[in-house]
Amino acid sequence: MDMLAVFTTVATQEQADALARAAVDARLAACVQTEAIRSTYRWQGALACEPEVRLLFKTRADRYAALAELLRKRHPYELPAIFALPVAEATPGYAAWVDESLG
Amino acid sequence: MDMLAVFTTVATQEQADALARAAVDARLAACVQTEAIRSTYRWQGALACEPEVRLLFKTRADRYAALAELLRKRHPYELPAIFALPVAEATPGYAAWVDESLG
Amino acid sequence: MDMLAVFTTVATQEQADALARAAVDARLAACVQTEAIRSTYRWQGALACEPEVRLLFKTRADRYAALAELLRKRHPYELPAIFALPVAEATPGYAAWVDESLG
Repeated sequence: MDMLAVFTTVATQEQADALARAAVDARLAACVQTEAIRSTYRWQGALACEPEVRLLFKTRADRYAALAELLRKRHPYELPAIFALPVAEATPGYAAWVDESLG
Repeated sequence: MDMLAVFTTVATQEQADALARAAVDARLAACVQTEAIRSTYRWQGALACEPEVRLLFKTRADRYAALAELLRKRHPYELPAIFALPVAEATPGYAAWVDESLG
Repeated sequence: MDMLAVFTTVATQEQADALARAAVDARLAACVQTEAIRSTYRWQGALACEPEVRLLFKTRADRYAALAELLRKRHPYELPAIFALPVAEATPGYAAWVDESLG
């Protein structure tokens, strides 16, 4: 199974929608799911707690490098969080749809 | 560790609750978490962006096939997204609770 | 890649924020993302369906045991769900930021 679930976060839904459309348009993600979250992290020595939007891109391992590059180039943050979780299983129908969507 | 996090998406919270209850009732998932998301994907040549509900089923590898089959049969979509991420670690207490819940 | 995505759930945003701050403060997580979910599970023989808040901690494998211990000690539940998904890929910039945040 070479499917990956790639994640990043941005500040607003508009930013998220723009990255989602760009990735699906470029056939670097079969679909993108976005949701509202709150992020807690250390920034310049102090704890920050900010509303963000998280994106989950469904893609294949052979598209990861190009997707990560697209996200880096278009991301509103200077140092974006971009990471991927491995997919262990997928139904045959869904796996075929992902392959077809990636063209 | 043979625990899996299985995901699917539906259109409404009612559809999500029905699938969640069915999976826990059938002891094919120890618990199910649902959340509101927005999905962007290509549909019949054009980009679609729709509100959906994502479900996360906590189960074991030996229940995955039966859970995927239950989801396929009861899913409101013709071609549902059904995939699983591997779990690397779980606290002993939680792992025992999942085993007990799956009976 | 030894990054992990660690998950737990609590009942309220206040409880989630407290755990998130404690983990980042103790440098056992680089950042923590929280979101509103609904959980369906079996409790004392009956199906329960409750609003919860899910937390996602970004950490490294060598911090997992200490993070799990901190979560167990401070968690409002008697039997908390604590589990981790393996991270397959991360951009070099993000991986370095996680390492730096964990000190």
